[in-house]
Amino acid sequence: MILTVDHGAVRELRLNRPPVNALTADLMEALRQAMEAAAREGIPALVLSGAPGRFCGGLDLPLLVELDRDSIDAAWDELYSLLRALAYSPIPVAAAITGHAPAGGTVLPLFCDRRIMADGDFKLGVNEVAVGIPLPPVIVSGLRRQVGPRQAERLAVSGVLISPREALEIGLVDELAPAAQVVARAVAWCETLLALPREAMAATRREARADMAAIFARDLEAELRQMMASWWNPETMDTLRSVVARLKKRADR
Amino acid sequence: MILTVDHGAVRELRLNRPPVNALTADLMEALRQAMEAAAREGIPALVLSGAPGRFCGGLDLPLLVELDRDSIDAAWDELYSLLRALAYSPIPVAAAITGHAPAGGTVLPLFCDRRIMADGDFKLGVNEVAVGIPLPPVIVSGLRRQVGPRQAERLAVSGVLISPREALEIGLVDELAPAAQVVARAVAWCETLLALPREAMAATRREARADMAAIFARDLEAELRQMMASWWNPETMDTLRSVVARLKKRADR
Amino acid sequence: MILTVDHGAVRELRLNRPPVNALTADLMEALRQAMEAAAREGIPALVLSGAPGRFCGGLDLPLLVELDRDSIDAAWDELYSLLRALAYSPIPVAAAITGHAPAGGTVLPLFCDRRIMADGDFKLGVNEVAVGIPLPPVIVSGLRRQVGPRQAERLAVSGVLISPREALEIGLVDELAPAAQVVARAVAWCETLLALPREAMAATRREARADMAAIFARDLEAELRQMMASWWNPETMDTLRSVVARLKKRADR
Repeated sequence: MILTVDHGAVRELRLNRPPVNALTADLMEALRQAMEAAAREGIPALVLSGAPGRFCGGLDLPLLVELDRDSIDAAWDELYSLLRALAYSPIPVAAAITGHAPAGGTVLPLFCDRRIMADGDFKLGVNEVAVGIPLPPVIVSGLRRQVGPRQAERLAVSGVLISPREALEIGLVDELAPAAQVVARAVAWCETLLALPREAMAATRREARADMAAIFARDLEAELRQMMASWWNPETMDTLRSVVARLKKRADR
Repeated sequence: MILTVDHGAVRELRLNRPPVNALTADLMEALRQAMEAAAREGIPALVLSGAPGRFCGGLDLPLLVELDRDSIDAAWDELYSLLRALAYSPIPVAAAITGHAPAGGTVLPLFCDRRIMADGDFKLGVNEVAVGIPLPPVIVSGLRRQVGPRQAERLAVSGVLISPREALEIGLVDELAPAAQVVARAVAWCETLLALPREAMAATRREARADMAAIFARDLEAELRQMMASWWNPETMDTLRSVVARLKKRADR
Repeated sequence: MILTVDHGAVRELRLNRPPVNALTADLMEALRQAMEAAAREGIPALVLSGAPGRFCGGLDLPLLVELDRDSIDAAWDELYSLLRALAYSPIPVAAAITGHAPAGGTVLPLFCDRRIMADGDFKLGVNEVAVGIPLPPVIVSGLRRQVGPRQAERLAVSGVLISPREALEIGLVDELAPAAQVVARAVAWCETLLALPREAMAATRREARADMAAIFARDLEAELRQMMASWWNPETMDTLRSVVARLKKRADR
């Protein structure tokens, strides 16, 4: 589910779960394990990418809506573990946002070091509310750090999907590139960091990201249980079911 | 002093104290009570508006400068209560800034969910310092959340009045609209939120505004007493009296 | 090493250590003492300036690289004392960034009240990492306050040097002016503050800068010792020696 492509010293981890790289507990676990393996192998920097035109479609709602309580709990657990792994990554991770990136597709890059997005007719945003899921507090905090409290409030509450250009303007991404060059730009960005004195860069990076790591340094058990429970709210279930029915109808045409 | 206009589900609360909607303890209390009544009646969203060209002129200095200590204490108390009510509002409040909005006219929208301002030859800003009043710490905090610490410092210390366009650029307002459409835009914005799954939106809104609510979660008694006392500083009194004399001379022409 | 020029009520403190106003413990101490003297003399506002085209070149690496442990400790101690003095300054300090301002040249203005930079072919940025020095945590915090966590992370980790125009865009400086007018603009900015009711301005300024002062309100002893020790890391020493060799070769041509 994760394709590994080494570009010199930099390793690309490409989400590979067609058609839209929707997130399941398995995919999230595979990504986290690929990150850990890279660190063990001494890889100095990572690029997180997706398919051309489809970076990541967020949680796999059609699959998740059929799961039982234990499996839903496991999915939330894995999402939090993955976000924590990104926030605490000992090596830089550049997100090469190769296309559409709603919900989870916007969330994973929030905790990376850099966000380079394909300039084109793509959408991103934290539209969890629109599918009936309250945006988890750790994600609200990550969003606040990235775009400031005012824009974080707007994006989180309205669940609006925006264009790459608007995302660049408000700081939700850092850079746009032609679709075909997004991965190369992300690799090049990693290489500029690797050209710096290694220890000074690492120490400064740790300090500059300390406020992001702090989001996960609290006890998140209660918050996680709350998210797990909220999945079964009648409103959430009803909304998810009608979203999934709409998605299936669209796929059938 | 508050006109109530229902636009479908959304209720507009229009400040109505001619000529400039200057704030008195009574007006602030009336607004707060109208907010509470709306919540009790199950109104799901509010628009806070003013007169065409005159949203709110801030504290009514000509009236306040004649008051005794108890009445001044009551005005400060009511200002803090109103700001707290806005920050803690259980339902979204969009500010339709229909015109000039100096001092208090800028401050009330800071604690709303959205700020839509009339695009025209209007002014806004936190010019409290210019009339001799130190900007209250809760307002400095609200400003910092809205525009960031750097711009908050600039606006607060210099007391500069700016145009709607500059306000949009630095994030002091979120959107400009032709004067005749400001209220309609604010209503429409509320409607987009009301179209979302209600509980997911409410939970996300609570979380996204938690850092704003935190401004009022501390014990503010000492701060409030400080503001009450500072009113009687010779510098403040002298400045207020000469500001009021200038306003009266202008009104007499 | 500090030239003092009074412009009416406003005092300019001009760094005067040719050729590039590189910072030594002595220069930093002289600046801090000049600030303290100004406060004692009742000077109401300061402008911190440098030479035309050369505001401040950051720490004097060729000199520092030859020093022993006690002298290095003294330099770090003085840097922290100077930054604290700026953050706590009882009177406004406007930075007139008259030209190149790498590393320390960017850092000193971070803790001033206002940053006006010469519009021209100059560079600024926190490039400490590039010369092997981890960016001190207090500086990361100051940077975060000035440009937000996202840009602070980018600037700190990559050590990139940017143009005055990019600096203006991201808020690393507040205003650009033709080189010949930078000091005059800084003086004029101070004068607008001095035209305000004095006590209201001072109280508001204290509150608006409280989050900056808080950076230095913690016990910084452990952090300072860490910075002192890191100077002697083999990576830092090697990088500094090769940077200094390159500087000398350039000077010899």
